[in-house]
Amino acid sequence: MIFMRHRLNRIALAPASPQNQRMNLDALYSELTLKTKTKLALIVLDGLGDLATKEQNYLTPLEAAHTPNLDKLAKNSAHGRMIPVAPGITPGSGPGHLGLFGYDPLEFQVGRGVIEALGLGLELKPGDVCARANFATLDAKGIVTDRRAGRIATEVCEKLVALLSAKIKKIGDTQVIIKAGKEHRFVVVFRGKGLEGPLTDADPNREGFAIPTVKPRDAKNLKQKKMAKLIADFYKAALPVLAKEKPANGFLMRGIAHQPHIPLFEDRYLLKPACLAVYPMYKGLAQLVGMIKIEGPQTIAEQFERYLKEYDNYDFFFIHYKYTDKYGEDGNFAAKKKAIEDFDAALPILLKKKPDVIAITGDHSTPVSMKGHSWHPQPVLLHSTTSGSDKLERFTETGANLGSLSVFDSKFLIRLMQANAKMFDKFGA
Amino acid sequence: MIFMRHRLNRIALAPASPQNQRMNLDALYSELTLKTKTKLALIVLDGLGDLATKEQNYLTPLEAAHTPNLDKLAKNSAHGRMIPVAPGITPGSGPGHLGLFGYDPLEFQVGRGVIEALGLGLELKPGDVCARANFATLDAKGIVTDRRAGRIATEVCEKLVALLSAKIKKIGDTQVIIKAGKEHRFVVVFRGKGLEGPLTDADPNREGFAIPTVKPRDAKNLKQKKMAKLIADFYKAALPVLAKEKPANGFLMRGIAHQPHIPLFEDRYLLKPACLAVYPMYKGLAQLVGMIKIEGPQTIAEQFERYLKEYDNYDFFFIHYKYTDKYGEDGNFAAKKKAIEDFDAALPILLKKKPDVIAITGDHSTPVSMKGHSWHPQPVLLHSTTSGSDKLERFTETGANLGSLSVFDSKFLIRLMQANAKMFDKFGA
Repeated sequence: MIFMRHRLNRIALAPASPQNQRMNLDALYSELTLKTKTKLALIVLDGLGDLATKEQNYLTPLEAAHTPNLDKLAKNSAHGRMIPVAPGITPGSGPGHLGLFGYDPLEFQVGRGVIEALGLGLELKPGDVCARANFATLDAKGIVTDRRAGRIATEVCEKLVALLSAKIKKIGDTQVIIKAGKEHRFVVVFRGKGLEGPLTDADPNREGFAIPTVKPRDAKNLKQKKMAKLIADFYKAALPVLAKEKPANGFLMRGIAHQPHIPLFEDRYLLKPACLAVYPMYKGLAQLVGMIKIEGPQTIAEQFERYLKEYDNYDFFFIHYKYTDKYGEDGNFAAKKKAIEDFDAALPILLKKKPDVIAITGDHSTPVSMKGHSWHPQPVLLHSTTSGSDKLERFTETGANLGSLSVFDSKFLIRLMQANAKMFDKFGA
Repeated sequence: MIFMRHRLNRIALAPASPQNQRMNLDALYSELTLKTKTKLALIVLDGLGDLATKEQNYLTPLEAAHTPNLDKLAKNSAHGRMIPVAPGITPGSGPGHLGLFGYDPLEFQVGRGVIEALGLGLELKPGDVCARANFATLDAKGIVTDRRAGRIATEVCEKLVALLSAKIKKIGDTQVIIKAGKEHRFVVVFRGKGLEGPLTDADPNREGFAIPTVKPRDAKNLKQKKMAKLIADFYKAALPVLAKEKPANGFLMRGIAHQPHIPLFEDRYLLKPACLAVYPMYKGLAQLVGMIKIEGPQTIAEQFERYLKEYDNYDFFFIHYKYTDKYGEDGNFAAKKKAIEDFDAALPILLKKKPDVIAITGDHSTPVSMKGHSWHPQPVLLHSTTSGSDKLERFTETGANLGSLSVFDSKFLIRLMQANAKMFDKFGA
């Protein structure tokens, strides 16, 4: 065989002409989106993904669990695994859920303060800057000796927050809202004009150091500069209030940032969304993209029952189940397995009025063996009349490796759900 | 296990809002990187990947080989396949290894001249322009009649290079450094001011044509223009020196380019890297990103023994094994299989001090049936306490297709290795 090589293109490539700019993918999805009469359910078993280890006979909790109802769904579903952010990146709940909601977590970043504030049920306004805070113990020289003030009881935290709130309502023109969380945790919201984050943390991240002065992340940003000054003034006002408290005579602040601009879920997907979550953090994340929070249900069975009642009122249901993550964090294999079995037992309630499109997945993995969030792609099951079948008898991590969805970025899940809901017009002729 | 975490890279991130520009992924990895006390080993069986063909009973060399030690590792590892550059692109050793080192081969391009020069142990300075050259035979009219001058012996090459070096030390203000390689190969380094590549090749790529005049790749680049003139002047000075030699009375020059700016491996990953390679090319590639070259070992067993001795001195070990590629290029199935078995037999030496994270892969595929590099994704095995198990009993191409790592770009391997070394902080709350 003889190759005639014509090196025609051995010149520098011309820059893409303005006419040939690659189309923005979100714009394309948006352009193709049709309104259909379909019901979509995104069911998140928080931290679902796990690792097979020798200690557990090479079975993950999902693989070890008895899940007859998931099994039935599995056969007529597409399977795959999802990368929450990027290879090797372990996401917090914020980026994990933003990805599931179809927002690129590298494009839409939400400060910890904002997430905590939303989680505590605070209604944020545009321009609000939030900080996650916790009480700490300082020595006479202002050195942090306990970053969590011995994990004081929630009641003590509430008392101290009331004290601070009574003394500090404003700094200059800026309104200050302080709200207690659990144990040593609280949030501070600054509501005023011309404020912006993100700032560096007022937290040495370890004991034995003083609280560092916060700085703008972008030295040229005047609104961040103003905000940094405000934090310094807040410390000046607040530390004397706590001076005689024991052990909580100081506090640290982290994730100081404003609520980012996020396009509303309903505008972006033409789906009216509802959130059925129990824990505040997930309600807060749903609220951030404009989902309606449905309050009341405390168990997954109650959440599914409520879904049945609300069926006609919404197009999209985000249903959040916390316990898979919780027991993963605890390193409790049996409990995580049981949490999956409890979920499976409740699943038939949802299926009484089967959504047209069902996605069951996690926001990330929380392997029992790691006792924390991880970067490992979580398994996902997608079921609809057009999902096809991957001929898998069960929904598992190892099975999902073989699925037709392969490994993909979480942010595309909602696009696949929309496609399964026949919400996209054909692209091109 | 105790981690010493130094938050060295906690520098400002580009503000996400209000434009919500997508964050640069390398910047995110950098921001999240923690220093941990872990040892990472990247073990490259050059050209490892292969194709199953009917002629070999549908077994690849890796599948046909007896590999008890790899098998043991396989069960407790994650598996996948890697795309070196892009679908369908066959990489040379340069892009293949840059990808493995975590540098996008489309972003960081290295001229062949630079790679050859580094491979011959030349210490390059910023601004040096290098050319890969080989002696050739020209007829009376200057037509190339043998592009390799009959593959002259290395000693003859060395003699000719000495001749050229004696006669040509400078061209104008530019210093000229000429160094012999193996057989007909040599490199020329131009050290001066205001020089730049890349240029087109002084090589017709086939016999029967004259040596083409080199041109700037970018016609508007004045430094490239100056460099092109310098090459022409070098030919004017050098060809008369060789005029009476037989058969090497001429030479061709390719890959004329300067050393690109590449961020140092240690700065990029917070890992102190060492290179244990035998062949100059791979030492050169490692040196390009700032790895320390450990000289001495000649066999894979010796390389592993040396790893044991150097264990405390470095965090990251790049261990390169050439023979899988060599025998793939030869089209010798039995020899490639045997090379894998030899590697496997030496593996227990490495495991005496087991690295915390082990990646075993190739830089690309070199299928025996193709006798050359190819674009087929190479298999990769990733082993650590957090790699999980894909329940695979062996490390093979077909098995890797089922793995949890799926098919991914080579440049992410090091990020997964870092994740497995717990070197990334959580992203977001």
